[in-house]
Amino acid sequence: MNLKLVLKLVGRVLLMETAALVIPLVVALLYGEDPIPFLLSIAIVAACGFALSALPAKQQFFTREGFVAVGLIWIFTGLVGALPFLFCGYFATPMDCIFESCSGFTTTGATILTEIESLPKGILFWRAGTHWLGGMGVLVLATAIVPKLGIRSHYLTQAETPGPVFSKLVPKQSQTSKILYAMYCVLTLLEVLCLKLAGMPLYDALIHSFSTAGTGGFSNRNASVGAYGSVAIDVIITVFMLLFSINFAVYFLILTKKWREALASDELRFFLAVVVGATAVLTLANLGVYVGFWESLRYTVFQVASIISTTGFGTTDFVLWPQFSQLIIVLLMFCGACAGSTGGGMKCSRVLLLVRAIRRELHRITHPRCVEVVKLDGKLVGEDTLHTLLVFLGAYVMTVFAAALVISLDGFSFAVSFSAALTCVSNVGPGLEIIGPTGNFAAFSTVSKAVMSLCMIVGRLEIFPILVLFIPSNWKQT
Amino acid sequence: MNLKLVLKLVGRVLLMETAALVIPLVVALLYGEDPIPFLLSIAIVAACGFALSALPAKQQFFTREGFVAVGLIWIFTGLVGALPFLFCGYFATPMDCIFESCSGFTTTGATILTEIESLPKGILFWRAGTHWLGGMGVLVLATAIVPKLGIRSHYLTQAETPGPVFSKLVPKQSQTSKILYAMYCVLTLLEVLCLKLAGMPLYDALIHSFSTAGTGGFSNRNASVGAYGSVAIDVIITVFMLLFSINFAVYFLILTKKWREALASDELRFFLAVVVGATAVLTLANLGVYVGFWESLRYTVFQVASIISTTGFGTTDFVLWPQFSQLIIVLLMFCGACAGSTGGGMKCSRVLLLVRAIRRELHRITHPRCVEVVKLDGKLVGEDTLHTLLVFLGAYVMTVFAAALVISLDGFSFAVSFSAALTCVSNVGPGLEIIGPTGNFAAFSTVSKAVMSLCMIVGRLEIFPILVLFIPSNWKQT
Repeated sequence: MNLKLVLKLVGRVLLMETAALVIPLVVALLYGEDPIPFLLSIAIVAACGFALSALPAKQQFFTREGFVAVGLIWIFTGLVGALPFLFCGYFATPMDCIFESCSGFTTTGATILTEIESLPKGILFWRAGTHWLGGMGVLVLATAIVPKLGIRSHYLTQAETPGPVFSKLVPKQSQTSKILYAMYCVLTLLEVLCLKLAGMPLYDALIHSFSTAGTGGFSNRNASVGAYGSVAIDVIITVFMLLFSINFAVYFLILTKKWREALASDELRFFLAVVVGATAVLTLANLGVYVGFWESLRYTVFQVASIISTTGFGTTDFVLWPQFSQLIIVLLMFCGACAGSTGGGMKCSRVLLLVRAIRRELHRITHPRCVEVVKLDGKLVGEDTLHTLLVFLGAYVMTVFAAALVISLDGFSFAVSFSAALTCVSNVGPGLEIIGPTGNFAAFSTVSKAVMSLCMIVGRLEIFPILVLFIPSNWKQT
Repeated sequence: MNLKLVLKLVGRVLLMETAALVIPLVVALLYGEDPIPFLLSIAIVAACGFALSALPAKQQFFTREGFVAVGLIWIFTGLVGALPFLFCGYFATPMDCIFESCSGFTTTGATILTEIESLPKGILFWRAGTHWLGGMGVLVLATAIVPKLGIRSHYLTQAETPGPVFSKLVPKQSQTSKILYAMYCVLTLLEVLCLKLAGMPLYDALIHSFSTAGTGGFSNRNASVGAYGSVAIDVIITVFMLLFSINFAVYFLILTKKWREALASDELRFFLAVVVGATAVLTLANLGVYVGFWESLRYTVFQVASIISTTGFGTTDFVLWPQFSQLIIVLLMFCGACAGSTGGGMKCSRVLLLVRAIRRELHRITHPRCVEVVKLDGKLVGEDTLHTLLVFLGAYVMTVFAAALVISLDGFSFAVSFSAALTCVSNVGPGLEIIGPTGNFAAFSTVSKAVMSLCMIVGRLEIFPILVLFIPSNWKQT
């Protein structure tokens, strides 16, 4: 393990985080708020960043180093991102600050805050900003820096890329990052513009756009998006939540006018089918909760988009929905968004491939001599890829239950423990019962909060990069 | 599809069920109870049996026919097994009778009865008897008949054998069945003897031995095994529940004095480790519920054995345990017993292989050039077997959630819907909250009861044989 080079990389990312911290500092100054929390944070993060990035290190960099770097960068980012929360004095314990920061950077959006609107605007800007930074991954951002270190950056993205098939848009990885990043910025700005036009104040529009872009879910209002009571805002955010749940490769194909290829994506079709199907079923199932079909549709479609995109915004409290509807919400949390998007969960392509693998198995049983392959987008999916995917799904479910087991020590109901673990691993935000859309995570113990913070990172990095850290042989000095 | 031959096979099994129905008839006569329910049932089952087995059929029999036969035999058996319940007048609806019968034959042990002790002894004898018949599989029994039809019986056991690696004890399949069956009978008689010596009345000893042997869980007492309040009885049943959860191949190895091979079984070691580990953790976690360590140990070890063996007997109400303990119970329900036993669940060997596949995946990530295999009992597990296993686990979890979704329409809590689906698919019996060890399944709707009955059969046949029935192309006439 070339730990020095890994720490050097961590240092570089901390320096970028220092730069990012300047923006909420400016916001705080603009609103005449206390700049001390940010100044202190900047000083500490910068010091750590400079110290680590000045480490002398050999240029040896293999897959192992890549995975460890990815894991450590997210853990460090989560920790130092908590500093402004710690210094502002609005959070009860240091663990609460770490929880909120991890929830931000992993774009989960679960909060331990019971009251949001009384917090300084600078702090809330940083809180939503962590979503935006986390959204495309601190590392996809970092790939613009890494090449300068002369490192084969491919190893980094292998662990980072959300999903099994992030199409290589252009041959060079550093170029890919820039294109992705540009699309991300343009879509975010577009949402800010739309929300502003719909009557949202600029500050609120920025906050909500950051949260939507990262599919996070932090709002600056206690009642989340529901506070605005505007159909136009609901529709805009619904559309953008869905847009940010789609594989960005699809947008690149559209930009390069490869319409046919873009629309032929199996995952996209599956995703849209799930959204439409779930909305239809839930709108009918929730008729008893709302006045008429249209009101039911309005609140249901927003919630479906919010959960499957793993954003977690709320305009209604789905904890009041029938149990059947809540179970569908739980299933959507498992499923999650498309691979190659900023969304979390297992990813649609994986669920689709599992369904196809089951179908093939059933066919194989009754036609033992038939050779059948599993395809995605018309292309053969290798048995190795399929194997990794199935193992991933097994590890995913086991992680959720293992985390739920620790959380259950707090004594909350089965629904709370299970949904808390699931919503954290899937990076959604709200869960069932007391942690529903109008609830929060304040009541949990420090141990549970620590486990949940780790779960968010585990989920964001798709399980394996963090599990790899627990294998002792990977830490041997080479 | 050679449907005629399949129906002919169903007929043969129904004739065997007719013979089995004579025993509770005798019991009813001995106790001076009304024999009409049994006489009527025998008449109907015999008529159906004779009609179907007299069907003229070609001797063509392939894998497809084997799977369809297995599925249909269990469905038919569940249906006609409900006749005595229907005619005795103690059950509220016909669906309740079918639920109870399916729960019996699949060795689940979930009941819709709110009061058991007032039922006739003949009916309760039949109820527990279905566990015993179901235990080793109506079809492992049937393999003694099938060879006479001149059919390659291998196709039948492919679907039937519980678990991925049911060691072939002897070259001939029909011989294997006889040996398994003899061991099953001897172990059952041994338990009857032990329970009788411990002071249990003979009738009760038979009922509880039938239930233990099939890892079912039906008792003739409202308070289940707890009604006897005897440490000796608790210990005897604990031991036999564990004995019936172990791969019967292990006993054959012991009988043929291959001790080393028997004890080297990875699955056996894993199973014992889980039992000991879960008992240790739960005994400590439940200290607050009981008076002192020994009382906690006594009730905990019984419950651990009851749940992991998927029997479902109770001496205590685990719904009153801490949430943490209840979640461990849920995890034990998923895990289940060893392959090649009468127990249900995913099976220990599969869980163990999933863990090993995850470990290999983590190693592969950081050592991409390393070729590593997954082993069980020192032997290489083929990638194809591993693939089928992983797909099975995916299908298992999906089945549980799909069933929970339908059940949730009844409006019970998430914990109830989820645990109802899980306990049925894993053939355990009790679930959480209202369906706990002292509860019952009476409150569910007819639709839920039908889905749960199907889930029990789906779980008992390990998912695929029933899913295969839903593929239209398998029903084409050949």
